[in-house]
Amino acid sequence: MPFNIALIEPEIPNNTGNIGRLALATGSQLHLVKPFGFELSDKRLKRAGLDYWPHLSLFIYEDIHEFFGRQSDKKMVYLSSHGKQNHWDIDFEDGMFLVFGKESVGLPTDITSQNSDSLFKIPMYSEHIRSLNLANAVSIVVYEGLKHLW
Amino acid sequence: MPFNIALIEPEIPNNTGNIGRLALATGSQLHLVKPFGFELSDKRLKRAGLDYWPHLSLFIYEDIHEFFGRQSDKKMVYLSSHGKQNHWDIDFEDGMFLVFGKESVGLPTDITSQNSDSLFKIPMYSEHIRSLNLANAVSIVVYEGLKHLW
Repeated sequence: MPFNIALIEPEIPNNTGNIGRLALATGSQLHLVKPFGFELSDKRLKRAGLDYWPHLSLFIYEDIHEFFGRQSDKKMVYLSSHGKQNHWDIDFEDGMFLVFGKESVGLPTDITSQNSDSLFKIPMYSEHIRSLNLANAVSIVVYEGLKHLW
Repeated sequence: MPFNIALIEPEIPNNTGNIGRLALATGSQLHLVKPFGFELSDKRLKRAGLDYWPHLSLFIYEDIHEFFGRQSDKKMVYLSSHGKQNHWDIDFEDGMFLVFGKESVGLPTDITSQNSDSLFKIPMYSEHIRSLNLANAVSIVVYEGLKHLW
């Protein structure tokens, strides 16, 4: 099991669906922290995830406190456009948690401020773009990490 | 200008919109080959690309023959689930064309059969998944390449 992908309060069902597909494709587990911007029964979620959703190793948390309570002993890195280090510099480990925030505003400020040493960004090259699509960002980081585990 | 991202006959507007956003974020140019499965005025395209679409360096081709005719002198690699080599082994070069097929069936068979030496796949780890979302796949390959150019 290479990675644990955690989405904190995801808003867009297509993104979560595509990330579920990526998680399954890479042997990763998916952790979803409520509240969501959609219902888990949303057709767009299933469509983006194709027919593979039932095979996914999926964990649901009622809120961020339950997530951090249950996973308090795990090694985590946090992805944020406010990170000072690039994702290429993550010290990837098998089973590590890769934690992503919501599409509109990213991770909560208290998480980014308390974890500045493990906060990473995906570098960008245009003043016009503030962030990548969430599913694209997760894909970039997970495949960068897979190469390190191999 | 790191890369030229080429989408052959893309079908889903959200994907092309997200790939446009990625292209701009990475200083890449985007080449779209008709027929499309949507209109370029589609609201979903603009929404996925956010407000940045006008800044994008975008080239449109009426069909695959025009694309290969106008870009015949360029170095190209082709991404396909039928590739034998992994995308990690691409010999990335500045300005290289990264060519992706349509969401439903990938690249046309005559392209994959005539270019088997430059055909690469993104490795996957589950028998349940045949392919990743197109925008996710483009993101993975482009960011792998950016690291090589740096």
